[in-house]
Amino acid sequence: MIKTDILIIGAGPTGLFTVFEAGLLKLKTHLIDALPEPGGQCSEIYPKKPIYDIPAYPEILAGDLVDRLMEQIKPFEPGFTLGERAETLEKQDDGSFIVTTNKGTKHHAPVVVIAGGLGSFEPRKPLISNIADYEDNGVVYMIKDPEVYRDKKVVIAGGGDSALDWAIYLADVASEVALVHRRNEFRGALDSVEKASELAKIGKIQLYTEAEVKEIHGEDQLKAVVIKHNDEAKGQTYLETDYFIPLFGLSPKLGPIGNWGLEIEKNAIKVNNAKDYQTNIPGVFAIGDVNTYPGKLKLILSGFHEAAVMCQYAYQIINPDKRFVMKYTTVGGVQGFDGSKKEAKKEVVQSIV
Amino acid sequence: MIKTDILIIGAGPTGLFTVFEAGLLKLKTHLIDALPEPGGQCSEIYPKKPIYDIPAYPEILAGDLVDRLMEQIKPFEPGFTLGERAETLEKQDDGSFIVTTNKGTKHHAPVVVIAGGLGSFEPRKPLISNIADYEDNGVVYMIKDPEVYRDKKVVIAGGGDSALDWAIYLADVASEVALVHRRNEFRGALDSVEKASELAKIGKIQLYTEAEVKEIHGEDQLKAVVIKHNDEAKGQTYLETDYFIPLFGLSPKLGPIGNWGLEIEKNAIKVNNAKDYQTNIPGVFAIGDVNTYPGKLKLILSGFHEAAVMCQYAYQIINPDKRFVMKYTTVGGVQGFDGSKKEAKKEVVQSIV
Repeated sequence: MIKTDILIIGAGPTGLFTVFEAGLLKLKTHLIDALPEPGGQCSEIYPKKPIYDIPAYPEILAGDLVDRLMEQIKPFEPGFTLGERAETLEKQDDGSFIVTTNKGTKHHAPVVVIAGGLGSFEPRKPLISNIADYEDNGVVYMIKDPEVYRDKKVVIAGGGDSALDWAIYLADVASEVALVHRRNEFRGALDSVEKASELAKIGKIQLYTEAEVKEIHGEDQLKAVVIKHNDEAKGQTYLETDYFIPLFGLSPKLGPIGNWGLEIEKNAIKVNNAKDYQTNIPGVFAIGDVNTYPGKLKLILSGFHEAAVMCQYAYQIINPDKRFVMKYTTVGGVQGFDGSKKEAKKEVVQSIV
Repeated sequence: MIKTDILIIGAGPTGLFTVFEAGLLKLKTHLIDALPEPGGQCSEIYPKKPIYDIPAYPEILAGDLVDRLMEQIKPFEPGFTLGERAETLEKQDDGSFIVTTNKGTKHHAPVVVIAGGLGSFEPRKPLISNIADYEDNGVVYMIKDPEVYRDKKVVIAGGGDSALDWAIYLADVASEVALVHRRNEFRGALDSVEKASELAKIGKIQLYTEAEVKEIHGEDQLKAVVIKHNDEAKGQTYLETDYFIPLFGLSPKLGPIGNWGLEIEKNAIKVNNAKDYQTNIPGVFAIGDVNTYPGKLKLILSGFHEAAVMCQYAYQIINPDKRFVMKYTTVGGVQGFDGSKKEAKKEVVQSIV
């Protein structure tokens, strides 16, 4: 059982900044995220895209924003449960909560804050009736460790950056790489399109365009896929393979959180914005893009503010008898749980003569 | 008469960021500040001090924060009325407002937002009964253009960084510099204390410690000050001078805004935080450290959020018949009033074969 003061569901920018605000109040934090890396959408969907409305950053790449936040929270030593989805919330007799993931990892905390963004990102799956039977047995929707595919046969499907980039990368790792896309045009960075094109010409990638994987075969373990060509004259291609990797992007879903008894409005969690961003379940807060209230703006900077306010109230729940006096970091500095201390240089008082 | 869409009172970080959020909504802005430079406290009180709780800045000097914000808002060409204090607010028949400064500059806008921080910073003045008679006639509380003092006699009073730094600077500009401080110890950067000490030794600064300026003399124009020594044996020193510059720091005062009919609580302006950060006067908003509501945190990051929310409502007041659809800067880019355009690179759609 993982124990912490504030359990944060969602490791996007808002969830990450919550670690910092909690840390200033000497509260420990632990984050759960379905994605394998921190950063949420910023890392997964658009790491190389600039954002222009982060205060005091005229321009910052989403991936860099995440890196800076990770650096800022490092002294507060947050825990992470990554690649697992928060599945159930159980209220305990003492008012605390146990949150269990889809892989069975249990977390115990007096305060839970949902910083779930647009929801957990689920891979879009191709419409193949028996595909679920092969998940974890040859069908993979997200590549975590490319070494898994060394000297294996791989079929990748998709026409975006992910499909292109992994086909290019695995061309040097796997024994065979096939790339299947239902159109002739790819939607990706110019470099990637050109690079994939070159690799196709020298035979390092087998390219099937205007075609789709329509069947998968094998007993328990995947053995082959059937590619159907748009051009009926070309018919079907039966292709033996060890892995089938459809990379059709991710789509956000509120997911199991929708069943926790929270008041939901338009796929978002209702909170009390006049006070503390708490939900209808006392002790459970919701901040950032996942929440809704009158006049809600789905901006990262609003998530930051909501995190700061929410942590003050979490402090009161966790320490009902203490009063925390807020100190400005410029005045009081920042003291990490790792023993680090940053503070402004003190003025020198010195006699002049 | 200066005309704008949103008149911002206070050019600290929150006021500056309001220019950006308004600009995204195609609203023009103009700022009034009593200080001679934008940046508020950050520029005036602690430009060289680090702040640790600006999201995604593990550490940033207050002065650098202001510089980045100025860069971020540049495309939106804000107007500035600096070195003047907003004095009166007059509601017009059409619901708009005229704000007049202490120097008589008039500003007209449908929406006014007070981002006044802790108030306007007023210099702390020495207790000399007739000092007001000499203000602008030899007595100065803030140095704007040091060239004014070239080849003049100057008496500076104070024991902090300001007094030390200006005494050092003016030692090369003025014909005579005296530095008067009521203690023997100075409170400033080590360099400054040492440098001032050296200059005193070679006679470029006349140093009077454990002493205070107690009288000022002259007909209309300042002619001399009387310095009283703590050590009675030393008696008094009569010193001819062109300027007397007490640099005792600044103290924040809500000032004339306190008389505008706004609901005030504990020296701050009450706002509706459940909606739009509007005050009891429709069309007048208050954001940042100057406002108060249940659970208010006086953090710069909260001012940023309040600015973003407030601008959405200002848009509705200014364009009652239009509906603004918020676009993410990552998707829609940022288009300045100066014709500049920043946007993310579009994906390339290209045939691979």
